[in-house]
Amino acid sequence: MMHHMDSRERFLAALSGSTVDRPPVWLMRQAGRYLPDYREVRKGAGFWELCHSPELTTRVALEPLARFKLDAAIVFSDILVVPEALGLGVTFGAGEGPQLARRLEGPADLSAWKVEGAVDRLKFVSDAVKHLKTALAGRYGLLGFAGAPFTLLAYCTEGGGSDDFLKARVMLHQQPALAEKALGILADVTAQYLEAQCEAGADTVQLFDTWGGLLDREDYLRFCVPAIRRITEPLHAKGRKVMLFVRGGQHLLPVLGEADVDGFSLDWRADWREARTRYPKHVLQGNLDPALLLAGVAPVRAATSALLRVMREADNGKRCIVNLGHGIHKDTNPETVAALCDEVASHG
Amino acid sequence: MMHHMDSRERFLAALSGSTVDRPPVWLMRQAGRYLPDYREVRKGAGFWELCHSPELTTRVALEPLARFKLDAAIVFSDILVVPEALGLGVTFGAGEGPQLARRLEGPADLSAWKVEGAVDRLKFVSDAVKHLKTALAGRYGLLGFAGAPFTLLAYCTEGGGSDDFLKARVMLHQQPALAEKALGILADVTAQYLEAQCEAGADTVQLFDTWGGLLDREDYLRFCVPAIRRITEPLHAKGRKVMLFVRGGQHLLPVLGEADVDGFSLDWRADWREARTRYPKHVLQGNLDPALLLAGVAPVRAATSALLRVMREADNGKRCIVNLGHGIHKDTNPETVAALCDEVASHG
Repeated sequence: MMHHMDSRERFLAALSGSTVDRPPVWLMRQAGRYLPDYREVRKGAGFWELCHSPELTTRVALEPLARFKLDAAIVFSDILVVPEALGLGVTFGAGEGPQLARRLEGPADLSAWKVEGAVDRLKFVSDAVKHLKTALAGRYGLLGFAGAPFTLLAYCTEGGGSDDFLKARVMLHQQPALAEKALGILADVTAQYLEAQCEAGADTVQLFDTWGGLLDREDYLRFCVPAIRRITEPLHAKGRKVMLFVRGGQHLLPVLGEADVDGFSLDWRADWREARTRYPKHVLQGNLDPALLLAGVAPVRAATSALLRVMREADNGKRCIVNLGHGIHKDTNPETVAALCDEVASHG
Repeated sequence: MMHHMDSRERFLAALSGSTVDRPPVWLMRQAGRYLPDYREVRKGAGFWELCHSPELTTRVALEPLARFKLDAAIVFSDILVVPEALGLGVTFGAGEGPQLARRLEGPADLSAWKVEGAVDRLKFVSDAVKHLKTALAGRYGLLGFAGAPFTLLAYCTEGGGSDDFLKARVMLHQQPALAEKALGILADVTAQYLEAQCEAGADTVQLFDTWGGLLDREDYLRFCVPAIRRITEPLHAKGRKVMLFVRGGQHLLPVLGEADVDGFSLDWRADWREARTRYPKHVLQGNLDPALLLAGVAPVRAATSALLRVMREADNGKRCIVNLGHGIHKDTNPETVAALCDEVASHG
């Protein structure tokens, strides 16, 4: 057993593949509606207003760190800031999910995207990173993030949420050149946007491909992988590390290595051992079922302990980060989140 | 090249693993809202009214056979007939999806299920099978179907549609004994219900596990597989064949063999070659992306032709049935469905 590490030291060690006292832990959507202070903040501020206030984003990002034994913070923002910066008019209706005023249907819609200045219009997010970085005072890891290009394309074509995002899937086959061009623009803006988050103090960035799992391997390889590489290549040239989460992407695992990312955040349905065998040198993150957090403390403790055992099977738990396999559900009792984090800490 | 087969001969040959002139084809949701005559029928009849009329169910089931070169019909019904027969009060609101009046939350709810007589209350479905069988006059294959136990449990616990069916996933970990008991009841009723459909003339039956893909392998093995085996065992004892479709179940492929079914209907994201290698002696069905049917005739023809080539790679295309990897979307142009079927027929 090595010396006890502090949270940021542990998080950076897991990212770089050095020895850790135990795997670090952070949780997707750890700052969210399940927390009373977050709901309090949202009573007084609309979603965009919250995102644009460094004080408020830092406040909501810090709350879970104060409550739970977490090792990293993630900047509070949304993946749809990029389409908004491109001029697509994103609004969040009460309880209704996002709406985009200007859908991408054909080449004329793409020509109307306001690419020039888009990265500048995203400065409020790196400002939020900078503000949070100062508040963390070097004690915790810090993540930036962005939506992966296909997931952004899915919202741009659909004009809002969906469960099958058929419009984007149809576009890939009906207007493949248009889809590729749009994915390229989204990727290039995202690359600069993520570099700005790294410059502002993010220790790593995560790409959320929330809807990439709707595609088969062939389409993912053809459309998504090249777009992700347009992000990872410039970031790697600056020495940055990029994590990739593909929700429902268990079937894509054999091709995700082509995306040239540094680690994968695994969906709760992915098999950890299989992923580790396939990617022995990648950082792996995940992948507890968020439903467990609604089932009670005992199932959470048992599953967390089992995951930590599986993590230790290969290379003594190097390159492992404990997380969920999807975001925390709004009806989650914070007690179960505490139990998860306590269980991880007890394995140190 | 062998002699030209008629549709039912071809369908039965594919099911039994004998030589075929070409793989047969049918399509999930081939009788549905994308067809004008179906919409016409629905103008005059509510959903339950349609399901209870042998004349109307036969009319809508026959329409796609008259239009397209399909090899099999599927009885028109719904997977929620089983919860309705158990007394859960299923209604279909206009455009809103199904609602169940009596949700399953605890043991008392389960005790209130009207198990006695449930199979008798499902007689209208085997009547529909019988009526359709007569109309088909031996020329086409005929499928019966039911919801798989976990998918039914998902609706029973949620009380309607959902995209994550968290209540059922929580129940598996919070009240596992209750979940197992409910799954057992659903399985036993389904087994008798499917046997009645076979006696009425169905050549095979398909279990739709629309939401099974929400579970990881461990949960699927623990909860779903034993319930499915309670269906396949009595049906196999009568010489029946059972197909299983698990939507989003690509990651479950390594464990689905345990369910002891005769064939798998593959999601559009599953890799056909991988499934064939893993299950060389099972019937495999699928798995074109339904989004292609919205993309136009050319992409449909290309993908169908490519699938038929892959099917022929192993054992000259035995035990293969062309289908989609999910149901036909309501906005589909019937022309693209015709193109799919024509392309399959041209490979004879």
